[in-house]
Amino acid sequence: MKKINTSKVSGTQELLPKEQALFNQLRDNINTVYKRHGFLTIETPHLERTEILLAKAGGDTEKQIYKVVKTAETADESDQALRFDHTVPLARYIVEHESNLIFPFKVSQTGINFRGERAQKGRFREFYQCDVDIIGRNYLPIAYDADVIATLLDTFISFNLNTPILARINNRKILTGLLQAFNLEDKSKDIYSIIDHSEKVPPEKTKANFIEIGLSEKDTTMLLDLININGDRSLVIEKLNNLNITNETFKTGLAELNEVLSLLEAQNLGDNISIDLKVVRGLDYYTGTVFEFILPEYKSIGSVCGGGRYENLTSYFSDQSFPGVGGSIGLTRLFYVLNENNLLKNQAEPLLDYAIIPISKSEYEYSETVAKQLRNQNFTVMVVYGDKKLGDKLSYVAKLTKNAIVIGEEETKTKKLKVKNLLTGDITNLE
Amino acid sequence: MKKINTSKVSGTQELLPKEQALFNQLRDNINTVYKRHGFLTIETPHLERTEILLAKAGGDTEKQIYKVVKTAETADESDQALRFDHTVPLARYIVEHESNLIFPFKVSQTGINFRGERAQKGRFREFYQCDVDIIGRNYLPIAYDADVIATLLDTFISFNLNTPILARINNRKILTGLLQAFNLEDKSKDIYSIIDHSEKVPPEKTKANFIEIGLSEKDTTMLLDLININGDRSLVIEKLNNLNITNETFKTGLAELNEVLSLLEAQNLGDNISIDLKVVRGLDYYTGTVFEFILPEYKSIGSVCGGGRYENLTSYFSDQSFPGVGGSIGLTRLFYVLNENNLLKNQAEPLLDYAIIPISKSEYEYSETVAKQLRNQNFTVMVVYGDKKLGDKLSYVAKLTKNAIVIGEEETKTKKLKVKNLLTGDITNLE
Repeated sequence: MKKINTSKVSGTQELLPKEQALFNQLRDNINTVYKRHGFLTIETPHLERTEILLAKAGGDTEKQIYKVVKTAETADESDQALRFDHTVPLARYIVEHESNLIFPFKVSQTGINFRGERAQKGRFREFYQCDVDIIGRNYLPIAYDADVIATLLDTFISFNLNTPILARINNRKILTGLLQAFNLEDKSKDIYSIIDHSEKVPPEKTKANFIEIGLSEKDTTMLLDLININGDRSLVIEKLNNLNITNETFKTGLAELNEVLSLLEAQNLGDNISIDLKVVRGLDYYTGTVFEFILPEYKSIGSVCGGGRYENLTSYFSDQSFPGVGGSIGLTRLFYVLNENNLLKNQAEPLLDYAIIPISKSEYEYSETVAKQLRNQNFTVMVVYGDKKLGDKLSYVAKLTKNAIVIGEEETKTKKLKVKNLLTGDITNLE
Repeated sequence: MKKINTSKVSGTQELLPKEQALFNQLRDNINTVYKRHGFLTIETPHLERTEILLAKAGGDTEKQIYKVVKTAETADESDQALRFDHTVPLARYIVEHESNLIFPFKVSQTGINFRGERAQKGRFREFYQCDVDIIGRNYLPIAYDADVIATLLDTFISFNLNTPILARINNRKILTGLLQAFNLEDKSKDIYSIIDHSEKVPPEKTKANFIEIGLSEKDTTMLLDLININGDRSLVIEKLNNLNITNETFKTGLAELNEVLSLLEAQNLGDNISIDLKVVRGLDYYTGTVFEFILPEYKSIGSVCGGGRYENLTSYFSDQSFPGVGGSIGLTRLFYVLNENNLLKNQAEPLLDYAIIPISKSEYEYSETVAKQLRNQNFTVMVVYGDKKLGDKLSYVAKLTKNAIVIGEEETKTKKLKVKNLLTGDITNLE
């Protein structure tokens, strides 16, 4: 009988071993692909001084920061809190360790972040985020934007989901330049915000929103036309060129977008990318390339990955300029939605490769020898001890593996072992 | 120029990429070996309800718990705090999910725990702990104790340190039985504590401590003789048998110790184990097998791993009995002391396998193709973009890898690629 409520804290993830194995598989894939693409790994602490976190946080994020209560032992120190993303700690890390780093710095961070979000289905208060960033000192070639997107696409492709993945890509300089060209810069903040929300509301609402902030009917139509441009690179670039806008920012944005997509096409990722001028990624923070990933067959899931180019990562902490490009997979939420939509089911593997069952204590030693040999071949193996009946032991291991090796007197003598497939009943010799 | 203090919180680990790669190697080894030995993985949340943590914590631990300040959004809930070990959350997990688990439950947990420890060299406030536990329902065969020790030994062996690893093993039933036999049970708590500290003080001090708690000269001598018994199995077992103690607990302890060591010898781990009756592992918690690992050539480092058998994991949370055996590697501290003693140096590998340097933008696409091919062979590869001079690019990549592949017009045409070894200057064909 329970003496106490043993449920987990709400808004956290706690999985059974089988689900955890699936989760770990995704996380391993992420780390492997990030590494293959040449990203180095760092881990900053989960605890940060609150002033570091608040230097950037504002609005909702600030309200969601978990502060920690120091103990008697740590009482002499500054206020501390739990990090809410990897970006702020990365900025601090780069300023702190600059002289020991090599730029461009290709860096990945996968770990837990904390946010005191309102309890809600699929919203987590502690969650894995898996980030890649490439940081330059003063300057970073645009080709690295494609590098980040390619890495993240390869990561999703490695998941082997039963459904395609699509990166919707844009460059904010296009809209910025256009607003300059049409003298709408003073309204740019509102305009970005309206575009950012345009996919969540009916088209008439977006139109009404533009009118409401004082745009003319003509400018509204022009913007609506613009954000509805999407599709293949050549088509979109042509349409945008046909606008005959001479603004330099606009032209740079167009050229950058074209370069990023060309490089991705060169990597056979053409089927996984599209230009979409609706994608602006809320944050003021992004200045050029922006992207988000969706599962086109599961639109309701929304974005499963996002990122972009920022002019200066470290502006809150230093006067030096560190332009960068990065992206992030919110793994805990991703796992939740993939599971909910049965997109991982086909990957469930048995938890273990082999179970070895010695009939009695006299076979323990030989059983261990066999286990060791199999482990040296990278198999996962357990040996089942104890006096229970063989039938009981077999039904125990059937929940963990399909391969059982029973070792009795005979096997210990002859060293000839048989593997029983617990699903089919087939018996084969162990190689 | 820095605008703000960007140092990390004290008592936390923050590594440069090269050190982080070494750290990750150890962590990967741990996870791989745990898995091969048939341990399933779980991850409980870092946030726990404070009442769960306080159910077991007492004394120092309670003072070290980091509570978290809830945000406006989470204000309706119970007090929360950061977990300080994996054991309490595991107990909660088992009670909560019992009906969905399979017993014996072989489970590993590797992740961050938090303790508000006094700031001190080599002491951490957030740190990785890497635990294995095997939990039975009502009963757990003693052979699983050897299973846990073998797993942890194999883990240390996989680190390929330049120094041996030794497991010092004991069984608390031996001392418990002896104290029963000599009617010293009422002083057992003090006696355990004196033995636990006996290695940190001179032998005379231990003797004085025994006398001080009221032991006779004879009992003191007997205990001092006992705890100085150590060494090979057959020798120690013989010495203990020669004591002619008929107490059942004593005899059970002796038989268990003998079985655990025989099983470890059978796995060729004989050189890595010794019996040592001084090892009691403070906690009241342990009831049978106890062990700790040391690096005999680096005694000052102290214990690098420890664990043992406990009668009931979940007694704070449930009336049911879940006996278990487990052990833990404190990875953050371990990494710190290994580094400090230069025991990892020989393992530092280049951060990346290959750097590909396209001479100009025209070679970007082909460079990506080559990168993809190498990544498909599991190599870690970065492509270096931008207009910098080749010499600058080569000195950049020399800090990351020893293999550079320069791709110009010629290479793009012929598809014949050369790898320059940046250490030796040697040039070889890419296979």
